Amino acid sequence: MDPKLLKTKKVYFFGNGYAEGSASMTKILGGKGAHLSEMTLLGIPVPPGFTITTNECVHYLNSDKRISQNLKTEVLYNIKKLEKLLNLRFGDRKMPLLFSVRSGAEASMPGMMETVLNLGLNDETVEGLVETSHNERFAYDCYRRFLQMFGSVVLGIEAKLFENLAGTSTSLKQTVQSFKALIREKTGKDFEQDVHQQLWKAIGAVFDSWNLPRAETYRKLNNIPSKLGTACTVQAMVFGNLGENSATGVAFTRNPSTGEKEIFGEFLENAQGEDVVAGLRTPLSLHVMKEKHKACYKKFLSLQSRLEGHYKDMQDIEFTIQNGELFLLQTRTGKRSAQAQIKIAVDMVEEGIIDQKTAVLRVKPEHIDQMLHPRIDPKTKKKKIARGLPASPGAVSGEIVFNPDDALVLKEEGKKCLLVRRETSAEDIHGMNAACGILTTLGGMTSHAAVVARGMGKPCVVGCGELIVDEKKKSLQVGENIYREGDILTIDGSTGDVFEGKVSTIEAESGEEFKTLMAWADHFRSMKVRANADTPQDAYKAREFGAEGIGLCRTEHMFFDEHRILAVREMILSKTQSERKKALEKILPYQKEDFLGIFRAMAPLPVTVRLLDPPLHEFLPHDEKGIKDLAKDLGCEEEEVKRRIASLQEYNPMLGHRGCRLGISYPEIYHVQVQALMEAVCELKKNEGLYVRPEIMIPLISHVKEYEFIEKDIRAICDDILKKNNVSVKYFVGTMIELPRAALTADEIAKKADFFSFGTNDLTQTTFGLSRDDAGSFLFEYVQKNILPENPFISLDKEGVGKLITMATQNGRAANPTLKVGICGEHGGDPASIQFCFENGLDYVSCSPYRVPVARLAAARAALMSS
Amino acid sequence: MDPKLLKTKKVYFFGNGYAEGSASMTKILGGKGAHLSEMTLLGIPVPPGFTITTNECVHYLNSDKRISQNLKTEVLYNIKKLEKLLNLRFGDRKMPLLFSVRSGAEASMPGMMETVLNLGLNDETVEGLVETSHNERFAYDCYRRFLQMFGSVVLGIEAKLFENLAGTSTSLKQTVQSFKALIREKTGKDFEQDVHQQLWKAIGAVFDSWNLPRAETYRKLNNIPSKLGTACTVQAMVFGNLGENSATGVAFTRNPSTGEKEIFGEFLENAQGEDVVAGLRTPLSLHVMKEKHKACYKKFLSLQSRLEGHYKDMQDIEFTIQNGELFLLQTRTGKRSAQAQIKIAVDMVEEGIIDQKTAVLRVKPEHIDQMLHPRIDPKTKKKKIARGLPASPGAVSGEIVFNPDDALVLKEEGKKCLLVRRETSAEDIHGMNAACGILTTLGGMTSHAAVVARGMGKPCVVGCGELIVDEKKKSLQVGENIYREGDILTIDGSTGDVFEGKVSTIEAESGEEFKTLMAWADHFRSMKVRANADTPQDAYKAREFGAEGIGLCRTEHMFFDEHRILAVREMILSKTQSERKKALEKILPYQKEDFLGIFRAMAPLPVTVRLLDPPLHEFLPHDEKGIKDLAKDLGCEEEEVKRRIASLQEYNPMLGHRGCRLGISYPEIYHVQVQALMEAVCELKKNEGLYVRPEIMIPLISHVKEYEFIEKDIRAICDDILKKNNVSVKYFVGTMIELPRAALTADEIAKKADFFSFGTNDLTQTTFGLSRDDAGSFLFEYVQKNILPENPFISLDKEGVGKLITMATQNGRAANPTLKVGICGEHGGDPASIQFCFENGLDYVSCSPYRVPVARLAAARAALMSS
Repeated sequence: MDPKLLKTKKVYFFGNGYAEGSASMTKILGGKGAHLSEMTLLGIPVPPGFTITTNECVHYLNSDKRISQNLKTEVLYNIKKLEKLLNLRFGDRKMPLLFSVRSGAEASMPGMMETVLNLGLNDETVEGLVETSHNERFAYDCYRRFLQMFGSVVLGIEAKLFENLAGTSTSLKQTVQSFKALIREKTGKDFEQDVHQQLWKAIGAVFDSWNLPRAETYRKLNNIPSKLGTACTVQAMVFGNLGENSATGVAFTRNPSTGEKEIFGEFLENAQGEDVVAGLRTPLSLHVMKEKHKACYKKFLSLQSRLEGHYKDMQDIEFTIQNGELFLLQTRTGKRSAQAQIKIAVDMVEEGIIDQKTAVLRVKPEHIDQMLHPRIDPKTKKKKIARGLPASPGAVSGEIVFNPDDALVLKEEGKKCLLVRRETSAEDIHGMNAACGILTTLGGMTSHAAVVARGMGKPCVVGCGELIVDEKKKSLQVGENIYREGDILTIDGSTGDVFEGKVSTIEAESGEEFKTLMAWADHFRSMKVRANADTPQDAYKAREFGAEGIGLCRTEHMFFDEHRILAVREMILSKTQSERKKALEKILPYQKEDFLGIFRAMAPLPVTVRLLDPPLHEFLPHDEKGIKDLAKDLGCEEEEVKRRIASLQEYNPMLGHRGCRLGISYPEIYHVQVQALMEAVCELKKNEGLYVRPEIMIPLISHVKEYEFIEKDIRAICDDILKKNNVSVKYFVGTMIELPRAALTADEIAKKADFFSFGTNDLTQTTFGLSRDDAGSFLFEYVQKNILPENPFISLDKEGVGKLITMATQNGRAANPTLKVGICGEHGGDPASIQFCFENGLDYVSCSPYRVPVARLAAARAALMSS
Repeated sequence: MDPKLLKTKKVYFFGNGYAEGSASMTKILGGKGAHLSEMTLLGIPVPPGFTITTNECVHYLNSDKRISQNLKTEVLYNIKKLEKLLNLRFGDRKMPLLFSVRSGAEASMPGMMETVLNLGLNDETVEGLVETSHNERFAYDCYRRFLQMFGSVVLGIEAKLFENLAGTSTSLKQTVQSFKALIREKTGKDFEQDVHQQLWKAIGAVFDSWNLPRAETYRKLNNIPSKLGTACTVQAMVFGNLGENSATGVAFTRNPSTGEKEIFGEFLENAQGEDVVAGLRTPLSLHVMKEKHKACYKKFLSLQSRLEGHYKDMQDIEFTIQNGELFLLQTRTGKRSAQAQIKIAVDMVEEGIIDQKTAVLRVKPEHIDQMLHPRIDPKTKKKKIARGLPASPGAVSGEIVFNPDDALVLKEEGKKCLLVRRETSAEDIHGMNAACGILTTLGGMTSHAAVVARGMGKPCVVGCGELIVDEKKKSLQVGENIYREGDILTIDGSTGDVFEGKVSTIEAESGEEFKTLMAWADHFRSMKVRANADTPQDAYKAREFGAEGIGLCRTEHMFFDEHRILAVREMILSKTQSERKKALEKILPYQKEDFLGIFRAMAPLPVTVRLLDPPLHEFLPHDEKGIKDLAKDLGCEEEEVKRRIASLQEYNPMLGHRGCRLGISYPEIYHVQVQALMEAVCELKKNEGLYVRPEIMIPLISHVKEYEFIEKDIRAICDDILKKNNVSVKYFVGTMIELPRAALTADEIAKKADFFSFGTNDLTQTTFGLSRDDAGSFLFEYVQKNILPENPFISLDKEGVGKLITMATQNGRAANPTLKVGICGEHGGDPASIQFCFENGLDYVSCSPYRVPVARLAAARAALMSS
């Protein structure tokens, strides 16, 4: 194809087995146009027509919204071709040619843009249609449909006004009269009788619909660039509303919910496509079609199977039966549930349609994510009361509350609650955090509630406009029903559905196809996936999900345990090193037990243990009672406890006395931790024959000398314990890279360290100078004002933080070729960040146990996409 | 010189106009040895001797502290040469040759290491000395001196024990006996009679003295590497204690306090060098020498002038007159006060001895710094009660307090106080901050008190062991005197002196020589020096000190003014943008007045104005009364004020809602600031004909889109105001680079910005992940444990933070060749950091007005050193 031609040719014809376009031309013809051409070329019965390119849309939108004369000329030329082919004439009072005018962009944006059917009707041509169809009812049905669509889509009159009018009319002819009167009333002009003017205006309206707010939102959510524009297909009408032998419907080649290989769809007799969508009449099952329209059904079965084989993916097909003759009006890759996506991908490999790589690439990490969230049990009885936008996946039930403070109260009472708000703001964060799900009536997929809920990993439904919330009265109205504080609702953040009462959910399941797909993914993957786990339970869970080690085992959680917190506090309040050592001795056996449990769960896989990280004040009580109790327990003055707490207070704890800084001020803390760890390693080897691969990680290093200071002691203690126990185990000492200075001087540190693990949470905080705890109040605004593409704590900032990771990895490896490099921040579970890690040659990513399958797939996809 | 020879030759001879060494060989012969050789070559009368190299010291210290046989052989060979030259014999009972054994390192370390005089005396040779000198008293005086020095320096017996014994003896012979008895008692052995054994032991003791604690401390303070070692010079004795026609003394070629060109020194008749140091006898003025030792004086005058001319610097010379004959025993560059340093440098240029470049290089930034601190008025009467280490320069008087809380109380009462402690710790910081000076009895130049005081820029004297502090009784004892809380003392942190009562000080002065030197410095300097100034007063001060613009004008100080804080608070508590705008309108005229004042002071020099930076909660009251008053003033509920304060609270304010993040959330704040600024610019131009060069600086940028968002409005407002006023002024918009991400993406930002200014305070905080406010509790330990070479908030961390500066400057300039780059953090006044800025090609540094002269000199020195 001559690219010059592509730029200048504005209209592509298709019809009668010949087409100027093809499936490969979605960029300029949109999905609908390209596939109509493709189907035509395949010999599939498609009403003939032509597609105006996306370039023309862009040109139209950028030039005062005028249809250029050149475009008109090409359109008129193609209309001539259609007239000749069909032996009809556009605007002819005897044999009128009618058109559907349809939008269709490169990326599928179902329902987001506009369509006009039955174009070409006017007071004269409608009579022609009466004559050619011998069916006055049909002709006036078409005319009133056209008036309504043109009136609402092109002239901007509220669709409801037409619907209301229709209800008052006694005949279709009268309806047509009243619709024309409404148009005159609302626009001050008579309804356009010139069919060409109708066409130009309808094409303009389709182009304009590219910029409808709902379309913009959809594009933003799906990362579709706004500059692409939509194509516009003008196609000869076929009529599903010609009588009982006519019909219209949609069908999927496989079940889009379960993925089962079975044709799945519905149809309406004597109807046009919009009726299926509008939901005024209940569509029929395809079984009815099989019985009543046998020949058409048989033909459709063969065509849908052919299309699926041709496109090598499940198809979503629109069809119309006109007087017993089958036409296909659209085919596209069918949307489907996560479960269906996986089943279809695996089945198609087994059917020989696609290969394993394609299957792995077709399943997106989001699908795996959805599979791993609790879902509504499809078998359970439920009453759906509303539907909003699916803002953050997962299903959850809870008592409804109407303000953040109430959410906090319920949380403290140990109850699960849903926070219901008109919209949320920064001041609601504490309540959002306390609630187990969020439901709003306003806002879209990028609203505050949506962004924050996704960040928190909580189910969330937004923009549920059917609900009327009265925050003062603490009530929620849907239609007739009123729900009050304490009533239970269920939301499904994966679909946007809202149900009455508690609906049973099913936990993450991993069917056979899931396991098959993950096995393929593991085969294609080179980067390892580990889990962040602090307890034996988490460690077992992680292995179950396929983790290949622990990338981050935080030891501070062990300090908070109620049996040891007193000893920990005694240690912190000690005035001398020997007092501190005495308190630490008490903690030692507990820590050893912790390590025994975790190592046992993971052996022989590697476990990266991070030495104590948080500032000491986090372990002290801050309320009067806690202080009093502690003073009593330790047998000291309350004043002394208070004084110590005050002296440990910090202005910016994130940048304070924590991490390795503690290990330098109080070396004995790390000494005891390392002792507990190494003794556990030795015991497991000697008593249980378990081989453990410990990696001791020093947090918050900023200068190589900090590392050296601490590393020396660690190695001495480890070697000593190994020698004493006469055990030979390889252990590793390394560091978090979580401060810019560590990344900048990685070459120095790498000379000494066995491994690096990027702590991207803190690295993001320090690189941006942005406290995650405090950013809630303005980060949302940043994303909304398009200053940041997304929350950098969720998806790694490649240009800034990523630059440090690249530098540190390259310089670190250059200084120490055996350096192992991983990531253990929360980004380790984010697909885009995982791809970045792969591109930078990291050895592994580590994430929460539940994200491990997502990470495994993301790592495989990254490898496949780069190969 | 054959380097192999340097390594193998161990001993360098000098005497009788011939020398194997020279002034250029200080590295292996030490200053003393090299200059004795040089003086010998110059034909100056120097007692002959030889110098053992520093390499031998290193070798000795690294090899079980044994004098090698090879070294002994070379020493004995050189002794033979001396015996032949002097016609005396080492250890001979008739004509005994005596030695002084003296230390001397490459860098001058006055008084830090050991010396042994009169070596070679024993019970037999002392009789020979009696015979050759015909002076028994002299001979036994030498012997008892030798016994005492050998006993204390070599054998480690407390010197005081000898002094006590001397007081009880009736004759020198008896003293000798009692000294020998003391040595036997303390060492269990008789005093060493073998002169060769005496020599080997004395050489060993000199080498050992390299590692004396005081020497180590001195090296640490003066950045002298510990691996260098000291040379050891063995030199034939000449005797200043042979009678009234003998003497010993020291003299400077110029006045070391004032720099006046006049010989300045003192001497003692019939004495040895140690007597001058010991201070038991009061030395005589050189005027006495001029009268009583005319010939020697005349000769000395000529020699000292020749030496100063030869070395082209002021010399500190030791001499001895032996029976009317003058010998020089040492010459070295003389230590001098800051004032003298400057005067001598300038005078020597005028005398044609050195050129301007040398003069500028000879004056160190510390000298300028000292000149700019208040000094003790030399003309005032004062009672010095003790001397400690000069830990942080400047002189200050205040009531003494003995704990940090009392310091705080006095400060709140508006009184000046000195915090007196045995030593300080992290828990004293608030008191150190409240005090105007710090005095400790323990600790050295790198103790907590010293490090923190230097950081705070407060005068500090440490390690003042003569003081006995009772912190409980709140009293301070020095000898007989007791000082109690509330008594006034004065400390001079530049000298370590402590005085009783209030001693008058003189403010920074800038004499003629100072101005001359600074003019030369400005001539050699390419990098500009600006000042950080927030008020017209500061701006005038800065210009007085030679600032070439304002590099940082903080606008938040303007917000704190008591007349506007209410409007500021009203703005913060506003619920809507229009309320906020109304409050800002009230602030506008005040801000304009501020800008008018500052611009007027600086025109036509550039002024960089930073838009509002601190988080809003800093402007709100936090005490009950303040909240109550505010609620009343604003006519709202107290609860509302409290709620707003609570909602603005942050976990990590340093990383919170501040800087440009405010400008994005509340654009109207910056709009009003820019409006005030630009209207001031226009008014000055129109009404006073003053040309202003405003540079508008956006703080805390991390992402180029933040910059774009704010910059667009700024330029629109500026252009609009200029147009309205029909004024044409060039203005600039740029940004602080104070977050790692800004530095990492500097190329992106530079495409939009006119200038960068490195905010190295925040950049250091975020690069290290270290809060300056909280680091006090452990940063000191870091420096002490040698983890960090120094506090990175005082001297720029070149490897980490510096790497970001280098990257940002290079990438920024590559993207925008006209980009102006400066630094406005406190490092802008630190000489080492200034040198780094110069090496990285920065256009200017900006520092506090008082540091401007320091920065001007440092910038000149950096340019000269690189050329």
